[in-house]
Amino acid sequence: MDRHWISFTTDYGLEDGFVAACHGVIARLAPEARVIDVTHLVPPGDVARGAHVLAQTVPSLPRGVHLAVVDPGVGTERRPIAIEAAGGGFLVGPDNGLLVPAAEALGGIRRAVHLTDGAWFAPVVSRTFHGRDIFAPVAARLAQGADLASAGSAVADLVRLPPPQLRRLPDGVTAEVLTVDRFGNLQLAAPADAVPGPGAVTVEGRPATAGGTFGDAAPGGLVVFTDSAGHLAVAVNGGSAASLLGTRAGDLVTIRTGHDADRVRE
Amino acid sequence: MDRHWISFTTDYGLEDGFVAACHGVIARLAPEARVIDVTHLVPPGDVARGAHVLAQTVPSLPRGVHLAVVDPGVGTERRPIAIEAAGGGFLVGPDNGLLVPAAEALGGIRRAVHLTDGAWFAPVVSRTFHGRDIFAPVAARLAQGADLASAGSAVADLVRLPPPQLRRLPDGVTAEVLTVDRFGNLQLAAPADAVPGPGAVTVEGRPATAGGTFGDAAPGGLVVFTDSAGHLAVAVNGGSAASLLGTRAGDLVTIRTGHDADRVRE
Amino acid sequence: MDRHWISFTTDYGLEDGFVAACHGVIARLAPEARVIDVTHLVPPGDVARGAHVLAQTVPSLPRGVHLAVVDPGVGTERRPIAIEAAGGGFLVGPDNGLLVPAAEALGGIRRAVHLTDGAWFAPVVSRTFHGRDIFAPVAARLAQGADLASAGSAVADLVRLPPPQLRRLPDGVTAEVLTVDRFGNLQLAAPADAVPGPGAVTVEGRPATAGGTFGDAAPGGLVVFTDSAGHLAVAVNGGSAASLLGTRAGDLVTIRTGHDADRVRE
Repeated sequence: MDRHWISFTTDYGLEDGFVAACHGVIARLAPEARVIDVTHLVPPGDVARGAHVLAQTVPSLPRGVHLAVVDPGVGTERRPIAIEAAGGGFLVGPDNGLLVPAAEALGGIRRAVHLTDGAWFAPVVSRTFHGRDIFAPVAARLAQGADLASAGSAVADLVRLPPPQLRRLPDGVTAEVLTVDRFGNLQLAAPADAVPGPGAVTVEGRPATAGGTFGDAAPGGLVVFTDSAGHLAVAVNGGSAASLLGTRAGDLVTIRTGHDADRVRE
Repeated sequence: MDRHWISFTTDYGLEDGFVAACHGVIARLAPEARVIDVTHLVPPGDVARGAHVLAQTVPSLPRGVHLAVVDPGVGTERRPIAIEAAGGGFLVGPDNGLLVPAAEALGGIRRAVHLTDGAWFAPVVSRTFHGRDIFAPVAARLAQGADLASAGSAVADLVRLPPPQLRRLPDGVTAEVLTVDRFGNLQLAAPADAVPGPGAVTVEGRPATAGGTFGDAAPGGLVVFTDSAGHLAVAVNGGSAASLLGTRAGDLVTIRTGHDADRVRE
Repeated sequence: MDRHWISFTTDYGLEDGFVAACHGVIARLAPEARVIDVTHLVPPGDVARGAHVLAQTVPSLPRGVHLAVVDPGVGTERRPIAIEAAGGGFLVGPDNGLLVPAAEALGGIRRAVHLTDGAWFAPVVSRTFHGRDIFAPVAARLAQGADLASAGSAVADLVRLPPPQLRRLPDGVTAEVLTVDRFGNLQLAAPADAVPGPGAVTVEGRPATAGGTFGDAAPGGLVVFTDSAGHLAVAVNGGSAASLLGTRAGDLVTIRTGHDADRVRE
């Protein structure tokens, strides 16, 4: 690497100076590094949301270091970790499940290290801001080419998030909503082929079109499509599926083809 | 250009990874490029708002490539385009009117190209995320010095937004609100000289001061002024004109001098 | 300095192009400069909030120029200033108290200059956007190594914010809330030793734990701790202290040890 990229994902929000403090720490330790902010608007403490956003974004990011901090257990016994991905790149953050889906999107886990060597951290480590005092310094040192093996001891028992719910039906699928994006589109924990298309389907009993993009439904109509991350997804053309269906991340959504869909259309 | 600047305007919001995915695509294709985010908080699908914000900001940006994606028609027949501005610089985005005002702010359109050469795009193009798969790659390649003429075929019939409403009155002006900014200031589709100042005027029948800056009115008072983009504008000193007047973008506002203003003052 | 860092703090919000216009001005005048955005979500005109966020973030930022604009008096008689900090680095912005706490965090004020030399500004200076037309150009020129002494005349009577309230009690402290962060944590205008810990205390008469981090209280419980900026602070483990206590910046909060705390616990 002749140029060093760090991506940065947190629940720190944008109204305080927390994100900038971490940028500052990186700038001091790795002035040549370039930082891409993924998002800092993960709802406070929502580890699953942070994990999903990061996992879906990393395939588009340059190879480098992915710093992520959604850390309701900061200052407690939860371990600070760094993961080297099998497909290249590093992930740095708390051991609470946040990093694992992104590591899997990068080819799986080559090795994981419990960060214990204080020489990698800030000279003084606060109890409540490990992003600034532990994780950003470690990310900066990795971007500078430091050897992860020297940062601590190997970990084999990483904390993982519970797998999202997915149940195949004879005529469709019931799947958990992984994320709801700004447009109110629902991304489901189901692969694109869980519902065959194109054609008429139902979403939660409402008529919908299995298509390719929003405009395949009439304005205000429901569309079932494969989203840009390869997941089955539900949208409203020119509107919000989340609002129309009253659905949030973690809810279950059922999509059916065949009888029900035809009956609705009569 | 020994240094390459890309500006970036969308309605993607900041809570998902969409903006970062585009940054990542640019970083991979044009690692030396520097990106300036204009805004990603254009209301979803609000092409006019995106167009106005970009047009008012480009005069302050370095010459380079302006990537803008507010694209409710993504994946439909609407054309992906790039424009070379007569005054220098490129604009990349959907052909829905979004880019034209900024092109005019950069001296007009030298040429416009319908982006049809798939070699400029991502290897696989999704139906719903052309920002990542078409527009960011094209912006990155232009920043790298690629020849726009090779990206597709010339376009002469660009889609344009309807012109905003503006009617001169004997004693003032009725003009459409182009944008409302964070402070609740109303920017009108009228030039600075549409209302002569300084002095007493009325805004929607309410007494106001035609002045130079917010402090020219008493606290809580209405000010009519020339904003930093050269437009006639309405503000409240220490408050929000949008809230006081109940006005939003697209509404009409009437400003009068003379009798009415004097009558109000009596 | 072989590399030039500029931090940037405003109340401009993120939905308009104001922040990008300033980035653009810096890019044109100082193309090698690197900008770290601190926050642009200071509530409109809230000088104290901007001052506190910047002062707490600068210790983590690289040495350089700190550009800050929260400027309800833009275009009036208030002076544009730049400060050279005794510990290194510059601050640029309006003379309304915004910059002084950050200067003190950087070792105090070595010199302050009233910016009067128009050659440092944009060719045309608007009345309402001094961030773009005065402050960003000055920050860029300082980052390029220009001599602050040539920008104007020395100032000795800087405007300062009123000191926050702090009263020591026999068994605790009553202190003003300096800031409330995204998580609802209350940062008090009191040093860490104003309440001895660890142990049982009361916050506004409610039982709380003086501890080191959020997890030292039960879920939903109040914690009194030393925050990452060295201030006494109040949080709720997994919740918002601001919501629980109905407290905002500027309010007073009383923390007591001893009898009261024990009585509450009975």
